[in-house]
Amino acid sequence: MNNTTLKYFKQQLPGLAGGYTLDVPDCEIKLNQNENAWDWPAHLKQEVFERVRDLPWNRYPPFVAGDFVAKVAAHIGADPEQVLVGNGSNELLYATFVSTLEPGRKVVIPQPTFTVYKLLADLMGAEVVTAGLNDELQYDAEALEEASQDASVVVLASPNNPTGSVVDPTDLEHMVMTSGALWVVDEAYFEFHGESAIDLTRNCRNVVVLRTFSKALATAGLRFGCMVAHPEARPIFAAAKLPYNLNIFTMAAVETAIENAVTMKARVDEIKRERERVARKLREYSGVRVYPSRANFLLFETGREPREVWKAMVSRGVLVRDVSGYPRLGKALRVSIGRPEENDAFLKALEYAMTVVEA
Amino acid sequence: MNNTTLKYFKQQLPGLAGGYTLDVPDCEIKLNQNENAWDWPAHLKQEVFERVRDLPWNRYPPFVAGDFVAKVAAHIGADPEQVLVGNGSNELLYATFVSTLEPGRKVVIPQPTFTVYKLLADLMGAEVVTAGLNDELQYDAEALEEASQDASVVVLASPNNPTGSVVDPTDLEHMVMTSGALWVVDEAYFEFHGESAIDLTRNCRNVVVLRTFSKALATAGLRFGCMVAHPEARPIFAAAKLPYNLNIFTMAAVETAIENAVTMKARVDEIKRERERVARKLREYSGVRVYPSRANFLLFETGREPREVWKAMVSRGVLVRDVSGYPRLGKALRVSIGRPEENDAFLKALEYAMTVVEA
Repeated sequence: MNNTTLKYFKQQLPGLAGGYTLDVPDCEIKLNQNENAWDWPAHLKQEVFERVRDLPWNRYPPFVAGDFVAKVAAHIGADPEQVLVGNGSNELLYATFVSTLEPGRKVVIPQPTFTVYKLLADLMGAEVVTAGLNDELQYDAEALEEASQDASVVVLASPNNPTGSVVDPTDLEHMVMTSGALWVVDEAYFEFHGESAIDLTRNCRNVVVLRTFSKALATAGLRFGCMVAHPEARPIFAAAKLPYNLNIFTMAAVETAIENAVTMKARVDEIKRERERVARKLREYSGVRVYPSRANFLLFETGREPREVWKAMVSRGVLVRDVSGYPRLGKALRVSIGRPEENDAFLKALEYAMTVVEA
Repeated sequence: MNNTTLKYFKQQLPGLAGGYTLDVPDCEIKLNQNENAWDWPAHLKQEVFERVRDLPWNRYPPFVAGDFVAKVAAHIGADPEQVLVGNGSNELLYATFVSTLEPGRKVVIPQPTFTVYKLLADLMGAEVVTAGLNDELQYDAEALEEASQDASVVVLASPNNPTGSVVDPTDLEHMVMTSGALWVVDEAYFEFHGESAIDLTRNCRNVVVLRTFSKALATAGLRFGCMVAHPEARPIFAAAKLPYNLNIFTMAAVETAIENAVTMKARVDEIKRERERVARKLREYSGVRVYPSRANFLLFETGREPREVWKAMVSRGVLVRDVSGYPRLGKALRVSIGRPEENDAFLKALEYAMTVVEA
């Protein structure tokens, strides 16, 4: 369709018409979306069912889910009056961009990073500036500070997807304190790293932290994320969010996940150990480069055409993410850390792929 | 907080800082949110649990939920390539406004209507024009046509909340066919009326229809709505929507609701009968005016201070909606049609309120 004939559409959205897309062949071992490889145990699922069984499904969720927000806040170490909840942290990022971005405004997005940041910034018609990751794909505070000078918003994922890089907390504090921009710190992979910017949000109105339950807390299918802002800034972001956005089932599951976080913590520790084990193994493969990662995935290069390597691994039933279409990652693939046996299968499939795909 | 000190916020959002608010005292009989008064039967809840028990909660929902969208499309009588799904129809309205509205653009919103339309339009910085409902609060095609001349978007709820009014299908077709604006028809209360604009969406690219499962299908707690657009326009709206917005539980519940829609249909018929019965009874009350309604609620005036009548009814355990803060409704209250015994309790509480509150 020729958009120009439809005057009511705001802008031509060529790159967005397809939006976010994903190529997902059916594979036995799925290491392409940085999910937690362990499903919820049956007794915890049952606990969620018990919680929602007697709730009225015909009624709207509570307008102000105060108790729920307080539990989430306690879990992540924030004050309840700082927290907004949503269907995945993406919904809160969307609200943040709606509050801050428009044509003529600038947003700094280091690349490569999570695709959705730029898609949403483009949707707002903002000018997107790429800066902040150096040649080693590590955060570069000086470059970030410079790029942020006349920007409205800076988006930092820490750990960053798909590179695994983290921002130095001292650098971040300095940048936030001296900047007029809003700093959005996406901590989707926080639990695999351990350092958070939440403390900064108590005193600085120009920083927000995003968290998700999709990764460490194994709840991707139920869509939950939250945002931590300064108590005075929170209502402004809240105004860009719909009422009743969360359903009662997701809320019940999140409460259950929080109460059982100790159980889940053991999985996180296992994933971290596996990440180091897989990275060590990969480094033993001749010609493979592995980037340091503080998340539940590894970014690596094989010295071979990544799409071909990806295909060869798919043929062995192992699905990793081909990130070679990302800026600066023409040679790279990304693998999520799964269960030990899945990681072994990945290592084996990669070994096979490297024999059949020419360097 | 003084927003002007925070340059990254797009605009002062005074009216929005509180967003959508709702005063909800705890009452035994809840007739304030146009919910379906009948909760899901236990066996249907159990069926949903069975469906999600063996799904992996740790995995993201399917990227393209083709089967799911096809079922929803078949249920509402649209083609799958026309349908977008979301966490309540509000999410899809939000995406529609993001695609079409910005400062300098005009949106026509008849008043009084559902509060969220204007809140979202204000959020986009659009100019909001109020037009389209006559002195009897019925749709006025001539006024709508005139107001839409230089507008980007027109929002019509049919049946309209809180008036119960409906747009004439012939008028709507004419307006859509001759207009350069996008017509958004919110059919949240469709099932209580029976006439839809979905047929128009097959041939006209400038009309979209919103539907929800929160009302007739008694699923408000699980948040589900959908949007029907022309197949060529749909991808543009889709690009303004987040990926993975729907959780697996809501999807399972929606599938169950669709498969059991016949059971739910009997409730809808009962609600329609009750609506007529309650309206007749109300008209017997001296000084009461009842507006004609094709939805699951009634708008009425009592000749008394509505807040006082509302309070007196709350003291009797019956919660209706005080809509006297809505434009043009300074004297009005709105009651949702509940179970027969709840409606009787409402009639009795109103009778009491009218004796204790002076005319």
